[in-house]
Amino acid sequence: MDTDPNLLARDRASLMVYGDDKPGIVAALAGVLARHGANIVALDQHSDNPEGGAFFQRTVVHVADLAATIPALEKDLAAIVGEELGLHWRLRDLSVPPRVAVLASKSDHCLLDLLWRQRRGELPMTVPMVISNHSDVADDVRFFGIPFFHVPARGRDKSAAEMEIVKLVAGNVDLIVLARYMQILTGSFINEVGVPIINIHHSFLPAFIGAGPYQKAKERGVKLVGATAHYVTEDLDEGPIIEQDVIRVSHADTVAELTRRGADIERQVLARAVLWHLQDRVIRHGNRTIVF
Amino acid sequence: MDTDPNLLARDRASLMVYGDDKPGIVAALAGVLARHGANIVALDQHSDNPEGGAFFQRTVVHVADLAATIPALEKDLAAIVGEELGLHWRLRDLSVPPRVAVLASKSDHCLLDLLWRQRRGELPMTVPMVISNHSDVADDVRFFGIPFFHVPARGRDKSAAEMEIVKLVAGNVDLIVLARYMQILTGSFINEVGVPIINIHHSFLPAFIGAGPYQKAKERGVKLVGATAHYVTEDLDEGPIIEQDVIRVSHADTVAELTRRGADIERQVLARAVLWHLQDRVIRHGNRTIVF
Amino acid sequence: MDTDPNLLARDRASLMVYGDDKPGIVAALAGVLARHGANIVALDQHSDNPEGGAFFQRTVVHVADLAATIPALEKDLAAIVGEELGLHWRLRDLSVPPRVAVLASKSDHCLLDLLWRQRRGELPMTVPMVISNHSDVADDVRFFGIPFFHVPARGRDKSAAEMEIVKLVAGNVDLIVLARYMQILTGSFINEVGVPIINIHHSFLPAFIGAGPYQKAKERGVKLVGATAHYVTEDLDEGPIIEQDVIRVSHADTVAELTRRGADIERQVLARAVLWHLQDRVIRHGNRTIVF
Amino acid sequence: MDTDPNLLARDRASLMVYGDDKPGIVAALAGVLARHGANIVALDQHSDNPEGGAFFQRTVVHVADLAATIPALEKDLAAIVGEELGLHWRLRDLSVPPRVAVLASKSDHCLLDLLWRQRRGELPMTVPMVISNHSDVADDVRFFGIPFFHVPARGRDKSAAEMEIVKLVAGNVDLIVLARYMQILTGSFINEVGVPIINIHHSFLPAFIGAGPYQKAKERGVKLVGATAHYVTEDLDEGPIIEQDVIRVSHADTVAELTRRGADIERQVLARAVLWHLQDRVIRHGNRTIVF
Repeated sequence: MDTDPNLLARDRASLMVYGDDKPGIVAALAGVLARHGANIVALDQHSDNPEGGAFFQRTVVHVADLAATIPALEKDLAAIVGEELGLHWRLRDLSVPPRVAVLASKSDHCLLDLLWRQRRGELPMTVPMVISNHSDVADDVRFFGIPFFHVPARGRDKSAAEMEIVKLVAGNVDLIVLARYMQILTGSFINEVGVPIINIHHSFLPAFIGAGPYQKAKERGVKLVGATAHYVTEDLDEGPIIEQDVIRVSHADTVAELTRRGADIERQVLARAVLWHLQDRVIRHGNRTIVF
Repeated sequence: MDTDPNLLARDRASLMVYGDDKPGIVAALAGVLARHGANIVALDQHSDNPEGGAFFQRTVVHVADLAATIPALEKDLAAIVGEELGLHWRLRDLSVPPRVAVLASKSDHCLLDLLWRQRRGELPMTVPMVISNHSDVADDVRFFGIPFFHVPARGRDKSAAEMEIVKLVAGNVDLIVLARYMQILTGSFINEVGVPIINIHHSFLPAFIGAGPYQKAKERGVKLVGATAHYVTEDLDEGPIIEQDVIRVSHADTVAELTRRGADIERQVLARAVLWHLQDRVIRHGNRTIVF
Repeated sequence: MDTDPNLLARDRASLMVYGDDKPGIVAALAGVLARHGANIVALDQHSDNPEGGAFFQRTVVHVADLAATIPALEKDLAAIVGEELGLHWRLRDLSVPPRVAVLASKSDHCLLDLLWRQRRGELPMTVPMVISNHSDVADDVRFFGIPFFHVPARGRDKSAAEMEIVKLVAGNVDLIVLARYMQILTGSFINEVGVPIINIHHSFLPAFIGAGPYQKAKERGVKLVGATAHYVTEDLDEGPIIEQDVIRVSHADTVAELTRRGADIERQVLARAVLWHLQDRVIRHGNRTIVF
Repeated sequence: MDTDPNLLARDRASLMVYGDDKPGIVAALAGVLARHGANIVALDQHSDNPEGGAFFQRTVVHVADLAATIPALEKDLAAIVGEELGLHWRLRDLSVPPRVAVLASKSDHCLLDLLWRQRRGELPMTVPMVISNHSDVADDVRFFGIPFFHVPARGRDKSAAEMEIVKLVAGNVDLIVLARYMQILTGSFINEVGVPIINIHHSFLPAFIGAGPYQKAKERGVKLVGATAHYVTEDLDEGPIIEQDVIRVSHADTVAELTRRGADIERQVLARAVLWHLQDRVIRHGNRTIVF
């Protein structure tokens, strides 16, 4: 399992580089990596337009002694990739699991799926806390050995509850996952937490934005229902989409049945999106994502 | 092939019954059919709410001499199902292929797919004519031995062109299929032709209604693109959905690529919807469909 | 939720009837049901050959006072359906959840998925016990409040362990589910337990029968991997298939990755098969199933 | 459309490199390409084992004057990639469509799908000839303006017919596609034609090898049927798999219905496999393929 490039991997790092396309980037990057003894294990590259578009590259490298190599490698990347080539870059040590806070409400299907995948080694992350505006899932969370914090919603003014959440997560997490968290977050919360937030919406966006998507799906008579994982922005259900999937339904499915069957798609779509984020495979570009 | 219950079938009829649910409908229907020597080959039933909802049933029967039996059977159905039970019903002789006019524009993928399937015996229909506002597909159509009529769009006033189409199809067809016909039909046309119209829209409705759905899909950054076959109503892309499907796409797909790959889904979704309509498996209920 | 016809439902029963096809079965059944005030909520019928084939019908009925009605209804069914028509039949009170024993080994993904779904109300069953030849999953099972029994495999002679399992389940369960139970059951065990056994096999049967299907899939270079839920018979992986599904994989997936991704399909396929069995939607016919 | 990297593209080439993995390959390749003014448009890389496994890389480059650049570029690749690094490589000018012979029998669905996709610009190939052991499809083929040759099978001795086919294709084609060609080819034919051969098999291999897969699928009671495109080797249906897909079927589908519905999957799977081969995205590695 420890040679699986997709999960936690000793002595591996991912390097994400993006910016204005120009000739010679791949060669320059390969040169920098070779100089530091970094062997390329996987490489994905995308240019959205060969004539003057944007360039994106994700490289996974293996270095014999990664931790010791990183400082010098970063210095070179800053000089060559950042200054000379004028590109953005980020280097992630893939042996260090990101810290993830999960926010949930009453539904347990997405939450438990994430915790269970983490426990069995499918998601390279630690979960320092689960926060919920209800206490229904407390026992389940603590059975996994994970701290549970109850932060009730308090009517229309979200600021107190949001401030409480910010205090809990500040400095302690690298990612927030909304696992069917049924509170709308304010723009100021999104800014203050300062880490990416991934949400799962229970429809095939942009269809059925907002509340009650399964009810709306039933009313419209669609033949497939879906789920969408996306980065949260200030615009509700409008952020960059990471992953989507659908299942076939029929006229015989009630709203309760759509909800039950949709839950299966929700947890899968969310788990895939979180995994890809943890592996640093996802890059935001405007309101879209590149997923390598 | 001639024992395949899904295609043209000698001595078979489908009976569709629908209306307010009440006890005893299934027994009454079975009784009528048994009295006329009609052996039930397939039966699908749906009630949308056991307490006072709507009832739908499709029965396929085999009768030794169907044509001779139909008049007496219809009389009984009118009396018992129509008058006594107060339900709607329709009986279709499945050995008689419906007559279908296909309307197309420049794109050939949906049109040719329908004609190939018809020729191969996959669609139990005849195609007495293809009508297009362009002449690009004329040779292809005539190679199939099917009359082609060119009815150009003439600017903003659609009435002349629509009247010409009405004249061609009036009394000659049982169904109109819009195989990527890129003209919006008026409500008066829909009323005048007096037969159902099936359209294929190149998106997963209700996402991306109207023009340019692949462009919109690219801009929104969705991870799946789809197609929807629906009955045409006066509200553009809002009619009852018969069938939908999607395929996975990625950030690397250009709009041209989405268009190319979406075309495969469009023609499959349209072919399935048309087949189900020809087999009288579809029933409109409000703005939704029951598909047996 | 309690009007959802798919899950536990007060005052509902399913009636499964099958045997040699002949005219008049549907009418006779509808008549019996009507006489007992049983309103038909859903009806599916299948004949595998209109000329002298086999007939299958599943009817879901609503009766105001089901428990009180069942004895008289069963007497009539025995007389009319059993004796007069010479057909097999079974009536299941859908408000009574079947009792299910789950057998597992070390892998927890299928087991926990079933327990979560049961707790959430998605699977209309009780789970009186979980039995495993390992003790790894004991804590998880007991957290659900479900008794856990450790019955270790003891080398080549399976009879002692199998006898122990027979004692535990005899009279206590209506169904056994093998949730990645990695012991092959003997024919005598299958006979003695006297209840149906559902297994999940981690391949798209009949491809990759037996041990190590993901390894074999990698070696053959397939582009999809799958899972199959089937009734257990004496022939390993050869029993009647209830459900199957697949996911797309690529050359980049290692065996470990196929195993991880396949696990998602295994648990979904198993959950669907168990649900359908619990709802009495599945009927064995030779080595195949009809799934209504 | 001409900026679509997936189809015919002026001034673009694909470079496939593979062999024993070692540090520095990506940098060396990028260096060679940069020296010849070749801008990297897309790059996919795969290593099957970071410690001493096999290395595969497909690079698509844009060069201002490709035809003039190729000779010098090839000389450098031979020296640096071939001799110094000891790797295999091939360079394909993506503006030159490969020449493809299609072999068919009586079924037209795969054949017509390929010809029609070629005509509409979806498959970057020319089709200098179609060869069939029957004459049913002659008119359709010639309507596309493509020469049709009838080479009947002549009993058990295949050598005369195979020799006739070899004469037709020798030197004239770069690829042979078996579009439901129902004759088994001998090993000597495969050797003599000297170009790759892609076949479509109407099952999800390795399930249902050989004749009558839909009949076998019906007998086994599978819930999905599939199709597999693979390179032809001497072992029937055992060659490296390029692409596979499946569709859901039910107990109600007859063998005729499985055949009809499977045909849709066959033509899609074959079209994808042929497209990927034409774009030089596929590399054989033992009995498997890497598909970039």
